[in-house]
Amino acid sequence: MKRFVAVAIIVAAIFVVGAVTPAEQPEKPADTVRAVLAEQVKCWNKADLDGFLKTYWNDDKLTFYSGGTISNGWKAVAERYRKNYQADGKEMGQLTFSNMEVEILGPDAAMARAKWELKLSKETVGGLFTLILRKFPDGWKIVHDHTSKDDPPKKPN
Amino acid sequence: MKRFVAVAIIVAAIFVVGAVTPAEQPEKPADTVRAVLAEQVKCWNKADLDGFLKTYWNDDKLTFYSGGTISNGWKAVAERYRKNYQADGKEMGQLTFSNMEVEILGPDAAMARAKWELKLSKETVGGLFTLILRKFPDGWKIVHDHTSKDDPPKKPN
Repeated sequence: MKRFVAVAIIVAAIFVVGAVTPAEQPEKPADTVRAVLAEQVKCWNKADLDGFLKTYWNDDKLTFYSGGTISNGWKAVAERYRKNYQADGKEMGQLTFSNMEVEILGPDAAMARAKWELKLSKETVGGLFTLILRKFPDGWKIVHDHTSKDDPPKKPN
Repeated sequence: MKRFVAVAIIVAAIFVVGAVTPAEQPEKPADTVRAVLAEQVKCWNKADLDGFLKTYWNDDKLTFYSGGTISNGWKAVAERYRKNYQADGKEMGQLTFSNMEVEILGPDAAMARAKWELKLSKETVGGLFTLILRKFPDGWKIVHDHTSKDDPPKKPN
């Protein structure tokens, strides 16, 4: 009987730990930020530009620095992406991020920086980005994006 | 007599407000960050590269993104600046920042972003930067710098 009780307690403990631990250990903010950026890449690579754009703060105060150009506001950022990647003769290609570093800067602020590479049918382009993300009621969103291209461009395919 | 007392109280109040207010209203963090960047420009424009480099975190974890190049650590950043602006035939020129935006991201973290322009003897170059600063016991320091150049370059002088 004692042995049965001991086994029952161990089995119960395993179930309790299994059920409670995930709820009691909320995801680390850095992991959540990484998940947002993984989602961004996933959307891009299935040509889902609307899904990709959902990772950006939908606000007039969103800023996007690309080379020497500043885009102010979500609409301008969306417009720029549509023009550069969805207009006639344009393609989205396959995007990868590498060497990603995420740093939590405050209770609701983070920086993410990485290398990016975009494989298009005739060339591969790449460079670096620095993102600032803030936590909103509906999750972490990019509020500032500074993306620069390799100089000179990487390589023809 | 009453009038004299009233005047004396007003005069005393003016002195007290004048003496106490600056001490009781500590500088706003955004103003302190702006002062660091103003100091950076001031040092650059008198060719004081050592002073300029003091605004960067003197640590191996400092990161500097320029175009497609990553410099890791204060020594690499300093080396890059010395090579590009103090080697034979190089010049520091005159630097200006404009459209500066400072956003406080946490008790000890801030972002600063702006346009930069560097007037050299034969050309003017420019672009954008995004900086992350953190507050240390010896003041706010740049911990990450992402600087990109206009594409195409701005103009010959």
